[in-house]
Amino acid sequence: MSNPALSWIAVDWGTTHLRLWMMDGNDKVIARRESDRGMGSLTSDGYEPVLLDLVGDQLPETQTPVIICGMAGARQGWAEAPYASVPCAPPSLAQATRVATQDPRLSVHILPGLSQMSPPDVMRGEETQIAGFLASEPNFDGILCLPGTHSKWAHISAQEVVSFRTYMTGELFALLSGQSVLRHSIGQGWDDEAFLGAVSEMLSRPAGVAAELFGLRAAQLLQAQSPDVARARLSGLLIGMELAAARPYWLGQEVVILGAAGLAKAYETALNGQSAWCRMVDIEGITLQGLTAAHGQLTQTR
Amino acid sequence: MSNPALSWIAVDWGTTHLRLWMMDGNDKVIARRESDRGMGSLTSDGYEPVLLDLVGDQLPETQTPVIICGMAGARQGWAEAPYASVPCAPPSLAQATRVATQDPRLSVHILPGLSQMSPPDVMRGEETQIAGFLASEPNFDGILCLPGTHSKWAHISAQEVVSFRTYMTGELFALLSGQSVLRHSIGQGWDDEAFLGAVSEMLSRPAGVAAELFGLRAAQLLQAQSPDVARARLSGLLIGMELAAARPYWLGQEVVILGAAGLAKAYETALNGQSAWCRMVDIEGITLQGLTAAHGQLTQTR
Repeated sequence: MSNPALSWIAVDWGTTHLRLWMMDGNDKVIARRESDRGMGSLTSDGYEPVLLDLVGDQLPETQTPVIICGMAGARQGWAEAPYASVPCAPPSLAQATRVATQDPRLSVHILPGLSQMSPPDVMRGEETQIAGFLASEPNFDGILCLPGTHSKWAHISAQEVVSFRTYMTGELFALLSGQSVLRHSIGQGWDDEAFLGAVSEMLSRPAGVAAELFGLRAAQLLQAQSPDVARARLSGLLIGMELAAARPYWLGQEVVILGAAGLAKAYETALNGQSAWCRMVDIEGITLQGLTAAHGQLTQTR
Repeated sequence: MSNPALSWIAVDWGTTHLRLWMMDGNDKVIARRESDRGMGSLTSDGYEPVLLDLVGDQLPETQTPVIICGMAGARQGWAEAPYASVPCAPPSLAQATRVATQDPRLSVHILPGLSQMSPPDVMRGEETQIAGFLASEPNFDGILCLPGTHSKWAHISAQEVVSFRTYMTGELFALLSGQSVLRHSIGQGWDDEAFLGAVSEMLSRPAGVAAELFGLRAAQLLQAQSPDVARARLSGLLIGMELAAARPYWLGQEVVILGAAGLAKAYETALNGQSAWCRMVDIEGITLQGLTAAHGQLTQTR
């Protein structure tokens, strides 16, 4: 049974998860679906069946465009969408990789990520968030901060990504709080003062991080430091180290933080503590906005 | 069946493993045994059976001293051996915790670790290596570097540990090379030039570590950087960051590296690259030497 209102499908296909939106016209969401069949669990012939599982019963007989961003375009993904190299605008649909499918009802486009040769760096997925942000604020000139597993800082000017840098902050936090000796000392709570103190320490003495990390364990053993303080301090040490390295990005610049509520708030608190001026834009919807911008290019070129 | 020559037992009981030596007189090794029944896998009533499994058939009817260092003395170990607080000499047998056993043939002594209140820090096991080193070089005045999972730097003067600091360098290396996104980029080989380059970068700009780490992944994707270069660079970034923080310890000081051959050599290479003067002392035997020094104190006080 086909749904006559479905006009295209937007997909954010990451390493561990995918999110998908069924769209009516250019920008009306009919339905949203999620799955844990991320790139990490799939071989290249596994993508089409996952897509058909999620939307097959809704596909009309006419061909439906599927516009994908994220790790599905990696070399080990569905099909490689070679990086566009900065400085450049976030890749348009014209740069997308077309993928042949068994099912003739699908017309699949995978958007490329961005690369930078010096220093070497890559992104896949964030370029579409940046495109989504620029769709709302085309004249933005300044810095985007995209906190996450691999936090990105990007310099945006004249609708282009001029340069960017990735910090493994979120992955370090996950490894240290979940799998290192510190897991015994880290709780689920929070303490703003401990967080800000740790951020300041790292901005002054970033080299000390490996000792301050072990100090979280020692402070629990010797001073019964609370697990909530330890968690806030761990976050502050790692975000503080990132801010110390990213200082040329944020010092004296307009910074917009694109991130999930809790984490974006921590970055805002840290930057405000350094008298940096920043604002947050909710990430929810930004990726879809970027995919929608790409779909708009499809309509234009038809 | 008893072995009349067994006079005492030396044990290095760590988190994941234990090593044990059966001794004749003060310092003659009869046999060496190993087990993976470390502190992490035992509750407090599990230690005596492990010990009896390993040496029970060799115990004479008379009581045999068992001298233990390491995590068996932690709060979650066999019995807590409260930390001695620096500045102080490595703990002597008089400071050891006596543990009652079911088997009357055992007389168990657990040596304390060391603690430092400011900045908060702890060690368990390394204090006995330091005691072993000082047994050979009682007049040493300088810096000991003990690389490992949790690398220690200790300032030694007048046979005391004046201060020390722990860096999570080895654990970070294990987590990043084995469990992070970098695991795909890291090989088993080595490259001295890449290692020294990364050490120098971190000594100049330690804050950048989280970006340089992700750069290992990007350099593989964009420049086909070899997995051996990536491994040496990862090691250099982490050891370089440790050296940047520990600079007040090593700058203009005599440094002795107490460590396993490969890792100690990397630290020596890194320090020599900074024109620091250091020498290596083989770690094999140092722990036993420290336990033997403690046993010598038992004989004296009998």
